[in-house]
Amino acid sequence: MPLPRVLPALVTPFTRRGELDLEAHRHNLRLLASRGVGGFLVGGSTGEGPYLEPGEREALVAAARAELGEGTFLMCGVSAETRRAAETQVAEASRGGADAVLVLTPTSLVRNRHQAVVRFYQDLAGRAPLPVFLYSVPPVTAYELPESAVAELAAHPNIAGMKDSGGNAVRLGRLVTATPADFLLFNGSTPAICLAVGAGAYGAITASTNYAAALVTELVQRARRSVAAGRPLQASLTALAAAVESHGIPGTKAAAAAARLRPGYPRAPLRVLPAAQARRLARLVEEAAGVA
Amino acid sequence: MPLPRVLPALVTPFTRRGELDLEAHRHNLRLLASRGVGGFLVGGSTGEGPYLEPGEREALVAAARAELGEGTFLMCGVSAETRRAAETQVAEASRGGADAVLVLTPTSLVRNRHQAVVRFYQDLAGRAPLPVFLYSVPPVTAYELPESAVAELAAHPNIAGMKDSGGNAVRLGRLVTATPADFLLFNGSTPAICLAVGAGAYGAITASTNYAAALVTELVQRARRSVAAGRPLQASLTALAAAVESHGIPGTKAAAAAARLRPGYPRAPLRVLPAAQARRLARLVEEAAGVA
Amino acid sequence: MPLPRVLPALVTPFTRRGELDLEAHRHNLRLLASRGVGGFLVGGSTGEGPYLEPGEREALVAAARAELGEGTFLMCGVSAETRRAAETQVAEASRGGADAVLVLTPTSLVRNRHQAVVRFYQDLAGRAPLPVFLYSVPPVTAYELPESAVAELAAHPNIAGMKDSGGNAVRLGRLVTATPADFLLFNGSTPAICLAVGAGAYGAITASTNYAAALVTELVQRARRSVAAGRPLQASLTALAAAVESHGIPGTKAAAAAARLRPGYPRAPLRVLPAAQARRLARLVEEAAGVA
Amino acid sequence: MPLPRVLPALVTPFTRRGELDLEAHRHNLRLLASRGVGGFLVGGSTGEGPYLEPGEREALVAAARAELGEGTFLMCGVSAETRRAAETQVAEASRGGADAVLVLTPTSLVRNRHQAVVRFYQDLAGRAPLPVFLYSVPPVTAYELPESAVAELAAHPNIAGMKDSGGNAVRLGRLVTATPADFLLFNGSTPAICLAVGAGAYGAITASTNYAAALVTELVQRARRSVAAGRPLQASLTALAAAVESHGIPGTKAAAAAARLRPGYPRAPLRVLPAAQARRLARLVEEAAGVA
Repeated sequence: MPLPRVLPALVTPFTRRGELDLEAHRHNLRLLASRGVGGFLVGGSTGEGPYLEPGEREALVAAARAELGEGTFLMCGVSAETRRAAETQVAEASRGGADAVLVLTPTSLVRNRHQAVVRFYQDLAGRAPLPVFLYSVPPVTAYELPESAVAELAAHPNIAGMKDSGGNAVRLGRLVTATPADFLLFNGSTPAICLAVGAGAYGAITASTNYAAALVTELVQRARRSVAAGRPLQASLTALAAAVESHGIPGTKAAAAAARLRPGYPRAPLRVLPAAQARRLARLVEEAAGVA
Repeated sequence: MPLPRVLPALVTPFTRRGELDLEAHRHNLRLLASRGVGGFLVGGSTGEGPYLEPGEREALVAAARAELGEGTFLMCGVSAETRRAAETQVAEASRGGADAVLVLTPTSLVRNRHQAVVRFYQDLAGRAPLPVFLYSVPPVTAYELPESAVAELAAHPNIAGMKDSGGNAVRLGRLVTATPADFLLFNGSTPAICLAVGAGAYGAITASTNYAAALVTELVQRARRSVAAGRPLQASLTALAAAVESHGIPGTKAAAAAARLRPGYPRAPLRVLPAAQARRLARLVEEAAGVA
Repeated sequence: MPLPRVLPALVTPFTRRGELDLEAHRHNLRLLASRGVGGFLVGGSTGEGPYLEPGEREALVAAARAELGEGTFLMCGVSAETRRAAETQVAEASRGGADAVLVLTPTSLVRNRHQAVVRFYQDLAGRAPLPVFLYSVPPVTAYELPESAVAELAAHPNIAGMKDSGGNAVRLGRLVTATPADFLLFNGSTPAICLAVGAGAYGAITASTNYAAALVTELVQRARRSVAAGRPLQASLTALAAAVESHGIPGTKAAAAAARLRPGYPRAPLRVLPAAQARRLARLVEEAAGVA
Repeated sequence: MPLPRVLPALVTPFTRRGELDLEAHRHNLRLLASRGVGGFLVGGSTGEGPYLEPGEREALVAAARAELGEGTFLMCGVSAETRRAAETQVAEASRGGADAVLVLTPTSLVRNRHQAVVRFYQDLAGRAPLPVFLYSVPPVTAYELPESAVAELAAHPNIAGMKDSGGNAVRLGRLVTATPADFLLFNGSTPAICLAVGAGAYGAITASTNYAAALVTELVQRARRSVAAGRPLQASLTALAAAVESHGIPGTKAAAAAARLRPGYPRAPLRVLPAAQARRLARLVEEAAGVA
């Protein structure tokens, strides 16, 4: 079965007190699946992956597997600075029943030491019981995995693909050229979806699929037929995502609520978007739903 | 007559002593015209525009007009920090017979003072006898004209379009959305040609057209039909341009010589590419010519 | 008792298998104390703080307290992205017997959202059983706590000071002006020690105190008398630290070994400095020791 | 006669129509000389050097020489992208009677090609009839001359010193170490004056000397005795300069007017500071004058 081309970077619902809300999580999975979503990224950066605590990845993935059954592709985010910590998170993902892990670039003590980052991925992929996807997301890490490092890592038998959230479709085109045909490149930036597909990316894993799943799905399909045909829809989605994501995760959660998900509270120091701003985003989400 | 979609950012030949070599210039114009090039940018940044001296713009444009006649579109680069200096250069372009001017963003004393940059363009466009094109080229200026400034300036009746050399095709797509349908957006970055066309750019003005005119022309045509169809040619051109342009203007001049132009010497502090590197680029130019 | 003005950002020794080596840790504490060091930062960024696992902060601090007794100032690094995670680490520090915590700026999901960072510190300081020091270290986080945020936070009764590792002594001077007289500003950048003291910083917490404790102590004393008098020693220390720290933590650990500490292994993806480079650093450490 | 340690980066007065106002220029020279200023930088970046036209450097320098006589040190700014253009400006400076030239780093077509920048300076210094000072000013050029390039160029017999306006006093300290004892390092950043002197800089060439000559002179003297003694005055000057220079050259011209200079109009696209803001700066200039 081929991987789905559109996955939400699913929000993680927390209670007001900051505990996982697995009931809301199951609601979100069911709702998006009912809208045709065939795969999920759980615990990615939009899923507050850097905020998750020991055991929570396993709980989120296991709940998703139980809710969705075997036919749904489940990718679990890993956000760790050491190989040990990454292995612990990969083990959680595996026990929960994930199909793959999406591993954030380490930074802090190896910032801009590209060879240490390459080593981190090679060591992890060599031991991981699940396929590893690379994850480069400069807006979160202020670091971009170099193209030469991606090319080197793509040769590893257990590194299956990448999510690149830098929003640079021209770079994605070069990565398509520099990696094997079966290396699965996902674009992670909503404004870049149409051109990323045009550049040869396999699909998209974005925050926007939480609140505009039909649009993103339709856009990827159109862009695969013709980039020019995708342009108007991309313009609508770009405008919506710019409004939502200027508020960060709280914006995405407010927009997801407007799309009838139950996103819950973010963890502090994030906090819920003020009501007036949330209402404005809700209007934009509803207008955009009419476009698709 | 519509504007051509592919213009070379033509190299400017200087003698060993640093004087304009107009005979070589005429040779270059004839040769590229014989290869189907229907318009030229003279004195752009690849044409060492920031290095030109009083009178030289007029000489270059007048020679081009005399050589090519009225049917060829001639755009002249303007590189100035004050309105006065810009007006002087525009007057040269006009006397020489240019059809339009491409005006570099001022920086130095207005660096990151976007409103002063907007004012510069508005004042200049209001007085210029020729249509003005905006020119944003971060690799040269370390400054990028903000999207909101482009949108504001595009409303001016004498601002006809823009050359954007930032290489960000997603941004180009947003600029297409934010500007009127007749605002002519040219992409200036060779690796971005295919996606820029996919994003709705009108055409390309690049250094690579000096040394790979047939490839660039073919790529723009293919990309206009289908971005996916343009990908392989884009990959070839991207690799060629990366090798050439890592050496800056001297690389472009060496590659242009391999394509039988007479690019002459660059002005100091630039200097001619060492022979061994020039030979390597010549091989790449010849190989790429076989691809088109 | 006033706080000491010179604290090492103490390395954390791990075994080859990546476990804490508390015996080596106690050796390092004893050795540096015997050289006159009167306070320690444990689990800072040089101490691989971002790599520490649950329980390890408490173990490191408790061992230090047991080894050194009550008269020694112990600061414990906290490196967390959420308030919950930070509180857990502060609780460890407190149980271990720390005198204060040094709390790294959160980044990831609040990158460049300064008000969220301010809120993080305010919430944490309001609940922490220990005084909080701010910690801004752009080489690790690619983020610098804005001066206005420092000024705002310095008014909090439980925020006692800051370690600023940006290496910008002029900024430190402005922070001295913008904060109360009893707000304790420590400089964290070795090349900036002399000027930071000149700018009014209280002292220095640096990696270099692991391998050049006598020089750093002497430099701070001289600089407090006269910046000009400190210059030659600063120049020696700058050259030494540039050679050592170009290798990151593995360089600091190699240099610490040359100074007879037992720094152990770093955690992967870091790895031990190759022997030839370690020997070169050892020679530099020994030469510098002769200068002090 | 030793060079003065404090030079204003003198503003250049233009008429409303954008022509040089030499009468106002002479007034400014006389006024500042009467306040004890013993040397001047004419046509630096504050003097709108990048905006000067052919012949204007010579006119400004010649007027200064005629007004001040032989005993006053006159440095003339050179702002050019090619060796030819730089030589033309140096010739103007020489004919006008300058004692030295301050040569801005070229950028545009050699941006980040450090060896071309080194070659530019070496070629120019080898032919120039006047001593050459290097000029690194990242806020204007978005480029910083690397320390290794400075060290290499300082060995040239006709390169006499440098003005570094990056505001990084720690870097200045390293440059003092890396250059011969008679290489004259001037700091160009007002907030860095006190620490730059502490780091071993020879003196200061700043915009602030236009509007706060007595403070700058007093600060340099105090800082030479004791950095700690200079701190309070530095804090006052830092606050004043922050308010003034947030408005760029128009801010400096408004503040200079408050100090009874006749700064005239800036050249477009710069424009005169609105009156309300100018009045606010005037109050700050007057308050600061009381501090000195």
